Amino acid sequence: MTLAPRPRGRRPGRDDTRGTIRAAAARLFQAHGYEQVSLRSVAREAGVDPALVHHYFSSKADLFCRATLGVTSWDIPRHLQEVLAGPREEVGRRAVRSFFEHWDVAEAAQEYVTTLGPDAADGSRAVTEMMGREIFQPTAAHFGHANAALRGQLAASALLGVMVSRHHLDVQPLASLSLRTLITPLGRTLQHYLVEPW
Amino acid sequence: MTLAPRPRGRRPGRDDTRGTIRAAAARLFQAHGYEQVSLRSVAREAGVDPALVHHYFSSKADLFCRATLGVTSWDIPRHLQEVLAGPREEVGRRAVRSFFEHWDVAEAAQEYVTTLGPDAADGSRAVTEMMGREIFQPTAAHFGHANAALRGQLAASALLGVMVSRHHLDVQPLASLSLRTLITPLGRTLQHYLVEPW
Repeated sequence: MTLAPRPRGRRPGRDDTRGTIRAAAARLFQAHGYEQVSLRSVAREAGVDPALVHHYFSSKADLFCRATLGVTSWDIPRHLQEVLAGPREEVGRRAVRSFFEHWDVAEAAQEYVTTLGPDAADGSRAVTEMMGREIFQPTAAHFGHANAALRGQLAASALLGVMVSRHHLDVQPLASLSLRTLITPLGRTLQHYLVEPW
Repeated sequence: MTLAPRPRGRRPGRDDTRGTIRAAAARLFQAHGYEQVSLRSVAREAGVDPALVHHYFSSKADLFCRATLGVTSWDIPRHLQEVLAGPREEVGRRAVRSFFEHWDVAEAAQEYVTTLGPDAADGSRAVTEMMGREIFQPTAAHFGHANAALRGQLAASALLGVMVSRHHLDVQPLASLSLRTLITPLGRTLQHYLVEPW
């Protein structure tokens, strides 16, 4: 494994490299959203070999959660598994509940808000893009829908709209209600987008 | 009726005053969204008597459509009437269809895009806020729901999420599909938010 030239004046150890990759990823995700960023482009931005990115982060989703959200506890493959396990008629509800659990954590985490900078909408955007790609689209595909990409994006857009209304628009009463009260209405919307026939 | 002091060096006629009000309203709606702006604040911003605003524009919604969207054809009370008329089980579908008809017009209108400036999301935002307040909330109230404000905001958020995904995120395939193909999935979501029991 070879290393790309390192910034001068620093002697990066293990943590430094990981931090450099994380910072580069945060910049790229912030600027371009989730879809457009590849692990290769993160390596280039960080000035490290792509193999190092794979060494420190198990996947793009993992890198995104750690770099952009500053959370290490959001295990995306496990999240998807939780959504798919259990009764079919409660898929939407489970998808919303898991999302809110992590979003709630993220909302509370100061690092998260700091990472987002002044434009909170960009953060919601990247998160919903990631959710659409890594959770919702695979869920719709799991239920055999040929238009899984569109279905996943509609599900993500339902959450995006609510998050923007809460954080960006500050629409009342939507903004001040607990996320828990939104599980039923949003859960049914996601059920419709991801599972049911149209 | 008295006029507030007019800008010097101009001799405003009828059209000038109307244009001044429109420009003032566009600035305020763009900066603060729909809810927070009153006709009184528009009059203050324009430097005219509030009675003049009422003289030229039939309502806040009317002023919004003309000032922000640059469309004169979007008759909000009539739009609401169209949503409520017809079979109860197709309310959501009718609401989405009417919205898309006007949004499509707005998308196509060059003045609209110009008015929005670089931040198209602000435009979607103000429109969805207006729709929530003037169309969706009254619709949910019409069907006897005590939580009509929340229901209206959820319906607006469903459209906002899709519009931001299309115009701001450029999510594919969602962004390139014709609005027509989205009537069925979104219509059912709005039906659920506005009409059905939770």
